[in-house]
Amino acid sequence: MNAEVIAIGDELLIGQVTDTNSDYIAKRLNLHGVELLRVTRVRDRAGEITAAVNESLSRVPVVLLTGGLGPTKDDITKITLCGIFGGKLVYSPETQASNDALFARQGKEMNELTCRQAMLPDVCTVIPNPIGTAPGMLFRRDGKILVSMPGVPFEMRNMMENGVLPIIDKAFPCRGYIMHATKLVSGFTESRLATYLNDYEASLPETVKLAYLPNMGIIRLRLTVRGSDKEEVASLLSQYSGSLTLLLAGHIVSETDMTPGEALGTLLKARGYTLSTAESCTGGNVAARIVAAAGASQYYKGGLISYDNSVKTNELGVPAKDLEAFGAVSDTVARSMARGVAMKLSTDCAIATSGVAGPDGGTAEKPVGTVAISVYRKGEEITRTVKFPPADREKNIERFTSAALTMMIELLMREGGCRTR
Amino acid sequence: MNAEVIAIGDELLIGQVTDTNSDYIAKRLNLHGVELLRVTRVRDRAGEITAAVNESLSRVPVVLLTGGLGPTKDDITKITLCGIFGGKLVYSPETQASNDALFARQGKEMNELTCRQAMLPDVCTVIPNPIGTAPGMLFRRDGKILVSMPGVPFEMRNMMENGVLPIIDKAFPCRGYIMHATKLVSGFTESRLATYLNDYEASLPETVKLAYLPNMGIIRLRLTVRGSDKEEVASLLSQYSGSLTLLLAGHIVSETDMTPGEALGTLLKARGYTLSTAESCTGGNVAARIVAAAGASQYYKGGLISYDNSVKTNELGVPAKDLEAFGAVSDTVARSMARGVAMKLSTDCAIATSGVAGPDGGTAEKPVGTVAISVYRKGEEITRTVKFPPADREKNIERFTSAALTMMIELLMREGGCRTR
Repeated sequence: MNAEVIAIGDELLIGQVTDTNSDYIAKRLNLHGVELLRVTRVRDRAGEITAAVNESLSRVPVVLLTGGLGPTKDDITKITLCGIFGGKLVYSPETQASNDALFARQGKEMNELTCRQAMLPDVCTVIPNPIGTAPGMLFRRDGKILVSMPGVPFEMRNMMENGVLPIIDKAFPCRGYIMHATKLVSGFTESRLATYLNDYEASLPETVKLAYLPNMGIIRLRLTVRGSDKEEVASLLSQYSGSLTLLLAGHIVSETDMTPGEALGTLLKARGYTLSTAESCTGGNVAARIVAAAGASQYYKGGLISYDNSVKTNELGVPAKDLEAFGAVSDTVARSMARGVAMKLSTDCAIATSGVAGPDGGTAEKPVGTVAISVYRKGEEITRTVKFPPADREKNIERFTSAALTMMIELLMREGGCRTR
Repeated sequence: MNAEVIAIGDELLIGQVTDTNSDYIAKRLNLHGVELLRVTRVRDRAGEITAAVNESLSRVPVVLLTGGLGPTKDDITKITLCGIFGGKLVYSPETQASNDALFARQGKEMNELTCRQAMLPDVCTVIPNPIGTAPGMLFRRDGKILVSMPGVPFEMRNMMENGVLPIIDKAFPCRGYIMHATKLVSGFTESRLATYLNDYEASLPETVKLAYLPNMGIIRLRLTVRGSDKEEVASLLSQYSGSLTLLLAGHIVSETDMTPGEALGTLLKARGYTLSTAESCTGGNVAARIVAAAGASQYYKGGLISYDNSVKTNELGVPAKDLEAFGAVSDTVARSMARGVAMKLSTDCAIATSGVAGPDGGTAEKPVGTVAISVYRKGEEITRTVKFPPADREKNIERFTSAALTMMIELLMREGGCRTR
């Protein structure tokens, strides 16, 4: 079954806000057997919204809108939907009560604008939004459904899970099945893995697809099975997922899809190790990715952000002479940082980064994109200086961070007998 | 003048790749007086691409395509465009020469697949791509133009600057102007700001629009002026931007669009202050947002991630009795952390966070979503415990982080006489 998303908002058409909502919706719909045919971004104009809505409804049975539901007058989605579906705005006491409770919890006061949020089309079913002032709205036409959701990603996500997906599941019970299995694989480059899995891939039936999603040394392998019979889909998935696991024995970091930060956490928990971090160029990003995993307090004790060299020497015990002789971006300094923080915070493992994120600070020998990474585990370590191709600061920090997490995973996987291919 | 973007690729419709190309194109077109009316994402299917192209060409004079130009068989944009514009693929020796040179530079060898990149429609004008194998293609129909560009962001950007924008400038010399001014405003809620600016908004002529983009206590106010006369547009923008600045005196964090992390950096640099961080629940996110700003080393010295309580006592000097009496998530502990890190790293300012990001760890008194934040500046401080409405861990960490940055901005703005409304 197909669906479409219409993302509404001037900010999406002038490049000020990136539309990530559609990506989230796509992923969640996929798991519920629904594929996106199109995503359309339109401005906050009644005529443009109306045209896009009618076009989408002519193509697919499910249309999801995000955005344009704020209390200010530039947001016109609600009144436009009234026009499209032939309704008028009426007062919703339930919505007002929910918003009153929300404001009370936050200790804020309602004003005239926020009160407007309780005026809703009389031709829709209201989908509660316990964490924001704009409820969702469900409209039906000729057996098709349209749901309007807030554009605030967190509110939209909450509403998708608790309101929209159950509505779709109920409205279209027989729509075919799509099931995925994702494994995180370490120790291969993408092309080597593809070569290694060549015969396996050739053996897959038409309804089973394998996709490679590489990210800095960790490859996500996604197996997708489509079909009309739920049990057959599940059985095919189990069969081909099982044989993949056997083929990749010793290289599988995780049998479920997770971030590198979560995968690292799983390995640490399994081995009973604690972890600390010492970051220069990545400035807290490595720690942030570790802490993003729920339950990180079981293994992550903390870290130092030694952005200034004085912090490297005073807090991490990096010898000033090494900073002078080798520079902050060097194997020697990264190694001292990792060992220094492991000792200071009494942890089994440690990750350290020191690099040149740019745009300034590069030299001929150590251009922007160079990073020294050291990972440590009870006396063992891996330390490498990597030079990435030209990129902006944000991208560099992201790459340095991913590379650091991957190296720590690599060191931990060695205990399981994994070797790099 | 209006344009549309069509972003092509299955990966854009399953949530695997976020379409950031359209945002870049939008920003660049805006500065050239062209507004995006729509962005459409479609899959790699000939029928769907053809429909989207014909629809866009019926609405606007300029249509820009990205993606679907790779050498593998799932990429069908080129052959589809042949069908739409009635041409056939012919060999382009110039493109082959350019690709040979590219491969030689990278020390790679051409294969059959990459050779296909030199087969191009005979009804298009080729736009060279010196940094990738897929050239751009310019098609014309009824005075309208369509340009197909590669989806690789780096290649697309290069082609926009050197190929596409000059083509648009030449093809449509008299196309009207759009100018924006963005201000970051602190000390207002969105609805209070809207109420405060009610008369101002009512006074705006039809060609001037004001938009509110709130984010955790910092509101981005965007003023947009449209018109056919360049000087008139500039003069209107200057006039209404100026009166907005006067109205919001003391509340304007920045007169240009930037992230809260960059805004904080600008304030610190202007005042000559240094900064450090002590983070518990946000686990490095506050630091990461500060360090994301280029040149952060001018004011940011470093920080402690005191995830475990032992790090709070041993490294930041938080009294163990305070942790026991008030708990880690308390004004008292957050205040000690801020002062502790400012002293330890010898900085003028400091930010500290301690909270419950969830999903576990909440209590009746301090539920998930509770955070104690303390910001410090040379003896002065603001310390608050905030309870956010229910959210997931990621969102909580993001909100705690934004709130912490905003509070630091608030404390720095006080020197300028700003008070919260």
